[in-house]
Amino acid sequence: MTVHTTVGIIGGGPAGLLLARMLHNAGIDSVVLESRGRDYVEQRQRAGILEQGTVDALRACGAGDRLDREGIVHAGIELRYDRRSHRIDFPSLTGGRSVTVYAQTEVVKDLIALQLREGGPLLFEAPVHAVEGAGTDRPVIRYTHEGREHTLGCDWVAGCDGFHGVAKHAVPDGVRTVFERAYPYSWLGVLADAPPSSDELIYAHSERGFALFSMRSPAVSRLYLQVPNGTDPADWPDERIWDELEARSAVDRDWTLHRGPITAKSVLPMRSHVTEPMRHGRVLLAGDAAHIVPPTGAKGLNLAAADVIVLAQAFDHLKRTGSTELLDAYSATCLRRVWRAEHFSGFMTTTLHTDPGQSPFDSRLQISQLDRIATSPHAAAELAENYAGLPVV
Amino acid sequence: MTVHTTVGIIGGGPAGLLLARMLHNAGIDSVVLESRGRDYVEQRQRAGILEQGTVDALRACGAGDRLDREGIVHAGIELRYDRRSHRIDFPSLTGGRSVTVYAQTEVVKDLIALQLREGGPLLFEAPVHAVEGAGTDRPVIRYTHEGREHTLGCDWVAGCDGFHGVAKHAVPDGVRTVFERAYPYSWLGVLADAPPSSDELIYAHSERGFALFSMRSPAVSRLYLQVPNGTDPADWPDERIWDELEARSAVDRDWTLHRGPITAKSVLPMRSHVTEPMRHGRVLLAGDAAHIVPPTGAKGLNLAAADVIVLAQAFDHLKRTGSTELLDAYSATCLRRVWRAEHFSGFMTTTLHTDPGQSPFDSRLQISQLDRIATSPHAAAELAENYAGLPVV
Repeated sequence: MTVHTTVGIIGGGPAGLLLARMLHNAGIDSVVLESRGRDYVEQRQRAGILEQGTVDALRACGAGDRLDREGIVHAGIELRYDRRSHRIDFPSLTGGRSVTVYAQTEVVKDLIALQLREGGPLLFEAPVHAVEGAGTDRPVIRYTHEGREHTLGCDWVAGCDGFHGVAKHAVPDGVRTVFERAYPYSWLGVLADAPPSSDELIYAHSERGFALFSMRSPAVSRLYLQVPNGTDPADWPDERIWDELEARSAVDRDWTLHRGPITAKSVLPMRSHVTEPMRHGRVLLAGDAAHIVPPTGAKGLNLAAADVIVLAQAFDHLKRTGSTELLDAYSATCLRRVWRAEHFSGFMTTTLHTDPGQSPFDSRLQISQLDRIATSPHAAAELAENYAGLPVV
Repeated sequence: MTVHTTVGIIGGGPAGLLLARMLHNAGIDSVVLESRGRDYVEQRQRAGILEQGTVDALRACGAGDRLDREGIVHAGIELRYDRRSHRIDFPSLTGGRSVTVYAQTEVVKDLIALQLREGGPLLFEAPVHAVEGAGTDRPVIRYTHEGREHTLGCDWVAGCDGFHGVAKHAVPDGVRTVFERAYPYSWLGVLADAPPSSDELIYAHSERGFALFSMRSPAVSRLYLQVPNGTDPADWPDERIWDELEARSAVDRDWTLHRGPITAKSVLPMRSHVTEPMRHGRVLLAGDAAHIVPPTGAKGLNLAAADVIVLAQAFDHLKRTGSTELLDAYSATCLRRVWRAEHFSGFMTTTLHTDPGQSPFDSRLQISQLDRIATSPHAAAELAENYAGLPVV
């Protein structure tokens, strides 16, 4: 049996779900196919920092109620280095911008609930095998659901199925260019039942390696330690994690790290990846399907949101005017922002982490860069603008 | 025979000569010992971009007349990349700062003439063999002049004798820390009897490698091409140089490269180097004796000038108050500026050059960085402030 939709959306993560909501509100029908089950999607730990543009988009599509109640507005971050501390104030440096701490798990829960209540089809456990006919007017998505093979005919296909998804393979090898960088370290990320030790995030540069102090709620801390690639979380008992977090956040003023039971522990790889172009024929890639950033700049989820905001506007433009002008510009429009975010994420990563191969010269340059950010309004504003989020288009 | 001076200055380059002038004007006696002959010192091709602080110091010590007549004020530079062109306007981005194009050879000629006319002893062909007693109150400099060995007793020794000088060895190995970075490319620098092709310097990023279009006078161009380390200038006949300069400066607007006879051709290495501390006992290092920057940021001569401005102020403070407070702070005061310049010079170098080992990902990041400078006032100002020169102290 073949069914048909205007936009077939592969992937029920934040990119696919947000796109489905925006299309719904624009009166454009879509079907979302997610390979995993609802529980899995709602529980996987990911980012937690939303730019203003992402918050605005969630509100505009009706998913802002709980976000507005439970999200915590952050007006800055703290940099720590060389036992010193410096706060970057976003509003004063960016003309009023801030970020909101609200976990991706919660964004996904809100969007799923909304879509199931009043949106188009959203199928879980519906793995996609292939996208065919990208170069034709009628691409099809082949997927399995409830033990049977299905075909979804589409006017357009949105590939929101992440780094390991199948959508990107609809772009032929000869057309697709992949840009990549690997980093010689990973993050050990933990969730702890401990109140955050600071009201804002702390990015700590240390000769021992980078550490990040973040939070999920007033009772739950989210903490990260730079660790060597290939690290086994089992080698990091709770006490070692707390001691190391404390050592890397040492500062010449009063500061207490709140300890508590660690409830989750995992190692996250660090990678930069861009696939160009982000469109081939009638298949458009968005979010992690097209690009991965290391998490240091908090850009991954926000880039995904920016992609689908641009994409939804392009579909709306097509519906209203019949013109594919914005869809034709989609890849170039997004890639400018993607490369900016890749650059910023790489900058934050290489400025704050200790590369096992770095020389004492490199370490001094890191300190000089951090000192410059702490003393130059322009250098601070350059960080703040990129972190708090550049305009979507 | 032992003679005595307050400050024994090793090296008659711009650092040593400027220091001698400033000390003279403060009523502090000094002796300058230069290993080379006057002709050599006055002819060696070096930098040509003076920050405002350097110009101010030269004027204040009486060496500003010809500089004011012949120096060319530059209010900006042009960046070229991806066939695009973007001008960085210094005054509007820095609150009125500019730089002055005036070759180091001319600075040196002016300072030598002035010192010989009305300053303390300036000895050419007086190579220094050793600095002894750095840790005592009476260090001595041993040197040869006119075929005889001499000893100069000093209250203080200023080591302004460059990267290959002997002064830095007065700092014992166990005390001295060296920080270094090598770059996988050099510059082929040429002088040409051709009017500059642009009123301002052009910094050109190209997949073929970096190129810099500068000038010495309205009739003489100073041009540079990134070349592999170990390049033999003989492999670069004039026509190949001009063709390559043209290819690397390609831009989507009218642009004519003025060609002419090439009168000098040499390969310059690219290196970053810092020696810490810059003081040991009564020996103080200044300029290239303590630090080398790659030339891309035009910082080498200006860093040397800043060092000796700080040093002359410290000697003046000692004379007026009897306090060594500023001399004690000399190394830390200078090193903050040195590391800032190392960072900026490294940033300009790695952003504009093509590393033979760089990936397509790295190339895209360079373009994104240059695009950001072209579109963000903060990013542009960060470049302009560093280039036009940060306050000396």
